[in-house]
Amino acid sequence: MIIPNFTKGNGLIPVIAQDFETKEVLMLAYMNQQAWEATLKTGKATYWSRSRNVLWLKGETSGHFQLVKDIFIDCDDDTILLYVQQLGGAACHTGYKSCFYRQVKEGKNVVVGEKIFDPKEVYK
Amino acid sequence: MIIPNFTKGNGLIPVIAQDFETKEVLMLAYMNQQAWEATLKTGKATYWSRSRNVLWLKGETSGHFQLVKDIFIDCDDDTILLYVQQLGGAACHTGYKSCFYRQVKEGKNVVVGEKIFDPKEVYK
Repeated sequence: MIIPNFTKGNGLIPVIAQDFETKEVLMLAYMNQQAWEATLKTGKATYWSRSRNVLWLKGETSGHFQLVKDIFIDCDDDTILLYVQQLGGAACHTGYKSCFYRQVKEGKNVVVGEKIFDPKEVYK
Repeated sequence: MIIPNFTKGNGLIPVIAQDFETKEVLMLAYMNQQAWEATLKTGKATYWSRSRNVLWLKGETSGHFQLVKDIFIDCDDDTILLYVQQLGGAACHTGYKSCFYRQVKEGKNVVVGEKIFDPKEVYK
């Protein structure tokens, strides 16, 4: 089995989740080896939550799982790229399709992303 | 000016560079505040090299600069997404268009990326 190099990031590597159809970058999160193995085993993106310090099956609360379609590893073996099918249509906990819903323009943040759901309705 | 939150990653945040036309993810690198400010000022992607511990103007050796077309920041203010025009056609020092030129399939790495140049010809 391919084991990414988890040593450089103190056991964590960044993982980019990209919509497998539109190629929109949805989010960046982190995996440790346990999360990596869970993702390979289940086919659902599983990360390590840096804020809660727990294994985080994306969608476990909302039902908005990320079904992994393809996995890529970078030249240094220390970053993962996932092509995913985002159930529910939005990856961001704010309800936007992508976590990158704000553009930095002339020193300001401008909301450009598409809002898919109201977080108050999803996280009850 | 927007200042991303550099505190969570000990002064460094991950930055995703995506081809502004094809939306292919080209690479992931890191910025500190100095690199962020240089990128905003020059319009050329400038990172912080974790291996060399120096400011790294991408393309400074090869001439393959990344011209920044759009900048996005994520919901937590701790990850940057750049839409770039990759001069020379390849982002990876191995000569592949994307650093994510290997797919993880059935426990193995399979090269799927497009090789654009011979590194021996570019880095002399």
